[in-house]
Amino acid sequence: MYYSQKARLAIYAEGEFGKGRSKTAEGVIRYAKNPVVAVIDSTEAGRTVEDVMGVPCQAPIVASIAEALSYKPDALLLGTAWTGGQMPSDWKPDIITAIKSGLDVINGLHDFLSDDPDIARCAELHQRALLDVRRPPAVLPVASGKAASVPAMTVLTVGSDCSVGKMTAALELAAAARKAGHTAKFVATGQTGIMICGEGIAIDRVIGDFMAGAIEQMVLESGFNNDFVFIEGQGSLVHPGFSGVTLALVHGACPEAMILCHKCTKTRIGEMPFSIPPLAELVTMYEYMAESVRPSKVLGVALNTSGMTDKAAVQAIAAAEEETGLPATDPVRYGAGKLFEAIVKEGRLDRAAL
Amino acid sequence: MYYSQKARLAIYAEGEFGKGRSKTAEGVIRYAKNPVVAVIDSTEAGRTVEDVMGVPCQAPIVASIAEALSYKPDALLLGTAWTGGQMPSDWKPDIITAIKSGLDVINGLHDFLSDDPDIARCAELHQRALLDVRRPPAVLPVASGKAASVPAMTVLTVGSDCSVGKMTAALELAAAARKAGHTAKFVATGQTGIMICGEGIAIDRVIGDFMAGAIEQMVLESGFNNDFVFIEGQGSLVHPGFSGVTLALVHGACPEAMILCHKCTKTRIGEMPFSIPPLAELVTMYEYMAESVRPSKVLGVALNTSGMTDKAAVQAIAAAEEETGLPATDPVRYGAGKLFEAIVKEGRLDRAAL
Repeated sequence: MYYSQKARLAIYAEGEFGKGRSKTAEGVIRYAKNPVVAVIDSTEAGRTVEDVMGVPCQAPIVASIAEALSYKPDALLLGTAWTGGQMPSDWKPDIITAIKSGLDVINGLHDFLSDDPDIARCAELHQRALLDVRRPPAVLPVASGKAASVPAMTVLTVGSDCSVGKMTAALELAAAARKAGHTAKFVATGQTGIMICGEGIAIDRVIGDFMAGAIEQMVLESGFNNDFVFIEGQGSLVHPGFSGVTLALVHGACPEAMILCHKCTKTRIGEMPFSIPPLAELVTMYEYMAESVRPSKVLGVALNTSGMTDKAAVQAIAAAEEETGLPATDPVRYGAGKLFEAIVKEGRLDRAAL
Repeated sequence: MYYSQKARLAIYAEGEFGKGRSKTAEGVIRYAKNPVVAVIDSTEAGRTVEDVMGVPCQAPIVASIAEALSYKPDALLLGTAWTGGQMPSDWKPDIITAIKSGLDVINGLHDFLSDDPDIARCAELHQRALLDVRRPPAVLPVASGKAASVPAMTVLTVGSDCSVGKMTAALELAAAARKAGHTAKFVATGQTGIMICGEGIAIDRVIGDFMAGAIEQMVLESGFNNDFVFIEGQGSLVHPGFSGVTLALVHGACPEAMILCHKCTKTRIGEMPFSIPPLAELVTMYEYMAESVRPSKVLGVALNTSGMTDKAAVQAIAAAEEETGLPATDPVRYGAGKLFEAIVKEGRLDRAAL
């Protein structure tokens, strides 16, 4: 564990909470065991997390680090991120204030706090921890397809684009497996996933040659003592910037099965002039690319229907099932039970005993 | 230019010269403008480079750094590498000796010399340069498909595996284009290519999120003032460890055309239990994966027939042409003219004026 899951968190999302770039904040609020005691965003101050996100969390949104301190946080968690993952320069005074106020700082950006001399010196002086969760291990292997050898049923969530629900689907599937009485591991491959479960490697921060090796190592570590391993996917095979990370995950994890994730309201890759291919074509592409290392089937579709009415969500799910011939659902709205059942049903025959 | 192309090189290949792991040494000897004055390998001392490699290079193979000094090198170039790219610990005393003897050191491994405190201190004391050619730029973009916009005809070499001749094919194609009166740029994406042409970015050393962005940036830099840009490929879409790097190159470079490279004597990926798919299937796979960002065609096959008789090489070339329906040749044995002609012939119509 990189950090105690009992630590009380104040989440920094200045100017961004609930506005599309606070995926990290929202993921931690929804899934981390840590109590979230306050969110810092002066543009939403006075409301609660529930007001903005619609989840049962009464933590207040406050205007400053100073205000957050009255809720007795142990750490400041930087809760916004965007493509490229650099740190805006105007965060620095707030981070320094937090450290001087006695808080550790949890950071998921590509820019590491401990590489900033001012922040590092301040943390040392005040004996506070800087947790750069995206920093990869110093030594990693080159992958060789070994992850296919684990006895656990391994499932990778794959996607039509970034930010469509791959982490959420993997977390919900792990919860569904545990609910059904199995042992299940969620393998975090991105900053938010690591903050939620307290361990993992941010694959997109790993050097190219070792990306697949990093995920292979994590699957080997968890695949011998769990019934199911759900691996958080990243990016998309059709994303111009991140497709390499995605293929490294497919070939490094050697999943026995995949779940395709898609956000229904998205039609383009990022904000670029590239259309998201039809779901059935994405199923074909992921299975085709997996095959040379370990044949794997897409066994279901996890749809993110956020922002849609219940009626529209039900229609979108029916349309995805019709198009792909696979079971589909929104695991947040309706739970991941349907997808988990498909995984159990279609898994290897020697898994019948599970 | 990271280093003068007039500098005299002594190449360090202790115990490995010509034995399968000295790809870097051999690439530099074959293609770099720098004079190679000696190769250090005590197990081959007394012979010449020509004796071992069969190329017209009379540089002697010597047993030690001390012996190499009499040939007045300016720099020691570390000429061996293997999967993973770590530096063996027994190289360190030789590197220290070279620096103390007044040599700069050129290094293409994942391990950087300037990160080793002893080596760094020694280089500072003796005012020698440590050139870690694999160190990527500090800031790189996330790719967005922009490389498709350059006016140059862009060609990426892609492969069935690592070490099959992708760099060589790109270098020979650039030479063929220049011979035909065009301006042509070779874009180096690996350590040996960078050592040969004096610039480039080792894509496999770049952090996952920025791999495609790094190649996009290089294509944008060279694609507006050259008729042709030949981009050195890396790895293979079917390599469990490196496929992510390969797909990042395909989607970052957005090549107009691809040349498939294969070493005829190889049947498995690396030394792993994965078969290399048939060439025709690899053509289909590369074109299929390119399509979502920029449709691209494989226009020819570059075969590496090293170690084969002339008769066997001719037969292998004919078989590849029969299987793929594409022109094939060994660009080292027979020149790249045939492949370059196919590229010109099948290029975009608006390129007719070239």
